[in-house]
Amino acid sequence: MAGLSKVLDTDNTVFCAFVTCSSILVLKMMGMSILTGRQRKIHGVPASPEDLTLLKGKTIESHPDVDRVRRAHLNDLENIPIFYMAGIGYALTDPNPSVAVALYSTYTLARIAHTIVYAVHVVPQPARGISWGVGFAITGYMAMRTIKYFCCDSCIALCQNWVH
Amino acid sequence: MAGLSKVLDTDNTVFCAFVTCSSILVLKMMGMSILTGRQRKIHGVPASPEDLTLLKGKTIESHPDVDRVRRAHLNDLENIPIFYMAGIGYALTDPNPSVAVALYSTYTLARIAHTIVYAVHVVPQPARGISWGVGFAITGYMAMRTIKYFCCDSCIALCQNWVH
Amino acid sequence: MAGLSKVLDTDNTVFCAFVTCSSILVLKMMGMSILTGRQRKIHGVPASPEDLTLLKGKTIESHPDVDRVRRAHLNDLENIPIFYMAGIGYALTDPNPSVAVALYSTYTLARIAHTIVYAVHVVPQPARGISWGVGFAITGYMAMRTIKYFCCDSCIALCQNWVH
Repeated sequence: MAGLSKVLDTDNTVFCAFVTCSSILVLKMMGMSILTGRQRKIHGVPASPEDLTLLKGKTIESHPDVDRVRRAHLNDLENIPIFYMAGIGYALTDPNPSVAVALYSTYTLARIAHTIVYAVHVVPQPARGISWGVGFAITGYMAMRTIKYFCCDSCIALCQNWVH
Repeated sequence: MAGLSKVLDTDNTVFCAFVTCSSILVLKMMGMSILTGRQRKIHGVPASPEDLTLLKGKTIESHPDVDRVRRAHLNDLENIPIFYMAGIGYALTDPNPSVAVALYSTYTLARIAHTIVYAVHVVPQPARGISWGVGFAITGYMAMRTIKYFCCDSCIALCQNWVH
Repeated sequence: MAGLSKVLDTDNTVFCAFVTCSSILVLKMMGMSILTGRQRKIHGVPASPEDLTLLKGKTIESHPDVDRVRRAHLNDLENIPIFYMAGIGYALTDPNPSVAVALYSTYTLARIAHTIVYAVHVVPQPARGISWGVGFAITGYMAMRTIKYFCCDSCIALCQNWVH
């Protein structure tokens, strides 16, 4: 197996693509907080009861538009950290650079599309389902490749050593 | 202290165990989305109002079975990313490989058990409390070991240099 | 660009500060679970209906104090994993060590302050807004610096090579 110093070198294309895409996703998720704040202001829905006067709101009940942005944000929380966990592992499996860069950028675009069709300008299904599914499939592929590389291959090597 | 290139080498047992366990946890969390989708379909509860017709549902009110899976998923979000953050740090503290591998695999099994007793087939307490507590204790141990290794030891060394 | 083995060495000040701050934030987030448990016990609000008898509670309806701690915890989930993602990237951009250590520690203190003013002892706004905003700004700065270093600089270098 390749040493980490080689695989994760800052000159390594795969790793640079991964770090860049992760940072773009960080900014995208920060955008969700801004979108939520904007919806809270428009509809006078406070994040916490003590903000009621601050927003000149009349009630602490939520509003469908606020809930929608919150659901999109929660979906990010369910999907992006696990992409990060699987994506680092996958970068270490010595993948084909073109495939890896394509997967990382497709994931990033799919999540941006998910936010747009879910929370910015609602597009009828299956737009949301497809953008979510693309990211979901990529994360799953990366996690399975990582397990195969780090666990299964090691186990097979161990068994072969033991047999001989 | 050991250099990172040695500690995080892809031949390093501790690191391989960490990456494998993280990827298994990624797949497990992806399973939560599938479980939620299944419960939504059974009970006709849409994720978002516009999915109502898609699921042939009659109401956007939630159902206890959907809520249960969602709670289990949220508990994952509260626990697994912090395990990842503490687990990487711990891998860098040059731990005893057997102990490290045992902690990573116990954590992974505890979280799988947590999902089963909480969301798949409800087992009376304290099953859920124990499986959660085991993971919680392991995360806390790893975080404290990491702080001791990276912060306290450095501070003590600094002070000793300064005294002499 | 500097090689990763140099940048991420365990003797590297920036990296040690990052790992230490991350682990402190892990312990802080674990504290949220304990705070939630305490509020659940005080007000007899179970995490799941089957815990009702365990807590000697009378209803599964939530209580404002429980909701408050949960909101603070959810705010952590929205902010701390993305700090981790941006913070690793930033550590690899060969930053000025004093600036990097200052940013990591300020972020950590801001999040601890956020928890205190939000969930432990409620302080009127803008205390919560400021502590949240400081962390938000730091995460954004780190993500943008990472993109500039790993993506833009590489693109510019590529274009310059192509022109000559």
